[in-house]
Amino acid sequence: MVTSSRQRSVLWINNGLQLIDQRKLPTELVLLQCKSVDDVTHAIADMVVRGAPAIGAAGAFGLVLGVNHFVATQKAAGNGSTSDFVQAVEQAKATIDAARPTAVNLTWATDRVIQALRLKIQQEPQVTVKDLAPFVLTVAQALAEEDVAINKRLSEFGAEVVPVGSNVLHHCNTGALATVDIGTAIGVIYECHAQGKNIHVWVDETRPRLQGARLTAWELMREQVPMHLIADNAAGLLMLTGKVDVVLFGADRVAANGDVVNKIGTYKLAVVARENKVPVYACVPTSTVDLSFLEGKNIPIEERSADEVVCIQGVRIAPEGCPVFNPAFDMTPNRYLTGIITEEGVCYPPFEQSLAKAVDAAEKRRAEA
Amino acid sequence: MVTSSRQRSVLWINNGLQLIDQRKLPTELVLLQCKSVDDVTHAIADMVVRGAPAIGAAGAFGLVLGVNHFVATQKAAGNGSTSDFVQAVEQAKATIDAARPTAVNLTWATDRVIQALRLKIQQEPQVTVKDLAPFVLTVAQALAEEDVAINKRLSEFGAEVVPVGSNVLHHCNTGALATVDIGTAIGVIYECHAQGKNIHVWVDETRPRLQGARLTAWELMREQVPMHLIADNAAGLLMLTGKVDVVLFGADRVAANGDVVNKIGTYKLAVVARENKVPVYACVPTSTVDLSFLEGKNIPIEERSADEVVCIQGVRIAPEGCPVFNPAFDMTPNRYLTGIITEEGVCYPPFEQSLAKAVDAAEKRRAEA
Repeated sequence: MVTSSRQRSVLWINNGLQLIDQRKLPTELVLLQCKSVDDVTHAIADMVVRGAPAIGAAGAFGLVLGVNHFVATQKAAGNGSTSDFVQAVEQAKATIDAARPTAVNLTWATDRVIQALRLKIQQEPQVTVKDLAPFVLTVAQALAEEDVAINKRLSEFGAEVVPVGSNVLHHCNTGALATVDIGTAIGVIYECHAQGKNIHVWVDETRPRLQGARLTAWELMREQVPMHLIADNAAGLLMLTGKVDVVLFGADRVAANGDVVNKIGTYKLAVVARENKVPVYACVPTSTVDLSFLEGKNIPIEERSADEVVCIQGVRIAPEGCPVFNPAFDMTPNRYLTGIITEEGVCYPPFEQSLAKAVDAAEKRRAEA
Repeated sequence: MVTSSRQRSVLWINNGLQLIDQRKLPTELVLLQCKSVDDVTHAIADMVVRGAPAIGAAGAFGLVLGVNHFVATQKAAGNGSTSDFVQAVEQAKATIDAARPTAVNLTWATDRVIQALRLKIQQEPQVTVKDLAPFVLTVAQALAEEDVAINKRLSEFGAEVVPVGSNVLHHCNTGALATVDIGTAIGVIYECHAQGKNIHVWVDETRPRLQGARLTAWELMREQVPMHLIADNAAGLLMLTGKVDVVLFGADRVAANGDVVNKIGTYKLAVVARENKVPVYACVPTSTVDLSFLEGKNIPIEERSADEVVCIQGVRIAPEGCPVFNPAFDMTPNRYLTGIITEEGVCYPPFEQSLAKAVDAAEKRRAEA
């Protein structure tokens, strides 16, 4: 079983949110303290924290910072009403949600905090702002712990589909850095490694932001998982020559039919894998499944700054004034996926049914908790 | 028609070989003077000069530098024999050929110089070293001019298959920098642009060495061809959303059956293009066709230094000690190619026949010249 002795990427400590500044890795391990809603919003927008579940947890803790600000302000002005309190949390939510429009986990997490808050007020009409403030922190902390538990279950299901001795190809970063702990696709890798499955990982560097080179390589080396870093372009040769047994990646959003929106380059990888009969699995908590999208083609794709392509760590690699197209994500149609690994088991086609079942199971589990 | 007012990447001038130092682009335009066989060998090995035809021409001019050294040495020691002369040229050839084992154009070009030299001696048994020295230069210069003429014809044939208003996706660099002038796949692009075909180019940055970002973007911007630079990973999304009409690239070696060895990433691109019914053309002079390989899978793939992946322009992007796999090329099976554009016309499947015919036509043309 995966242990979790790692430094957490998202941690509530000293009445503030501490994040590993992932922009500084792999050369420096810098911890960033967020003291306000704006701090968290900027950290999410600037990718200090990235990875769907980590962003979600950071967003939830961001609401706690909004609460703290409201309480501090109200202390000066006299006690505010619970409806003022809810309004302040909703305002914080609107600010934070706008930081990464594609990250469905962000609004999912902030929604859950608001829902819990409303339920609490409904069930306990006499509740005061004094009670609600610590309650929001408790909800955010439960949400973070739930992420760790979800990744543990997901990793164990995932490890079952990875044969002993596999060469695993992994895109982007989906590890302990991308989540509160353990990770999703990298969680599966950690689990296989812990089970002594003797796996080896090809790490896609993942241009333009190089999350593979900077973060995944750093994580896997720290956990002593055998690996080689490759340029994304090298994945095809590896598959054509039989050196890849399974492709694993995460997702930023999964449509009801199993179409997957994930880091740019995922689609190319999945097409070439299917062409070479290499199994392809997206590894996602059910919270990433967005049933409001029946298929992936209408999910908006975030376009990011040209600088991500023309400058690498501040060094210019293209001519001045060079026009750039820089989509952060692409959409992989469900037909390229062998399965979608969730915390409720591995979903297989037809995904409409298997994903709906997994989402139901997860909701039931949460309702029972 | 394509004009050629550009600074040539490979130029014989002032009794030496002048190369554009392509490692310094796009930030600086530096001209490097090669005065010896070793200078040329290092320039080829270190990728001061790159691109199959440019390497071939540089290799041929390198033999002239070998000749000059022989003549200078012999002047001191008394006149050498023609067989000593041939031996000296062959020694220079062996040194230069070893600089890039995958570049079939290199040995092809140096072979042609040696063959011309042997023929000259056979036809004129009285010829002296004094006559042979300028003869080698004449052969090398003719070879360089022939490259320009070949690219002109290839570009005109290629432009016929690119529809008006096309979005062209291009991998690596195949332009005036990769050849003596004009280029192959970029030659086709220049020709379309000159014909007013209103094309737009998606420029694959081409990790790990970023020839697209550094060289192709620089060339196309200089010639005012509309373009956008993309991370290689973005090509899939563009194809899936119908924003690519044709894929063009060059090749380092083409087997008799049309399998293409080209810059790493070509295979992934070709697979995804076929999946999206986007036509794919390799643009190659017939000299790149190596009939000694019936198919591509036995062509050796050069592995290059880990530094190319973990350092970009001297900046480290991965953890210290990170293991790397860095193949410079991959092999694209012929089934992914719509056609192979040569100076003797566009070859279509079955390539065994069409390529053999093109190679024959080119040989006939050379014999008649």
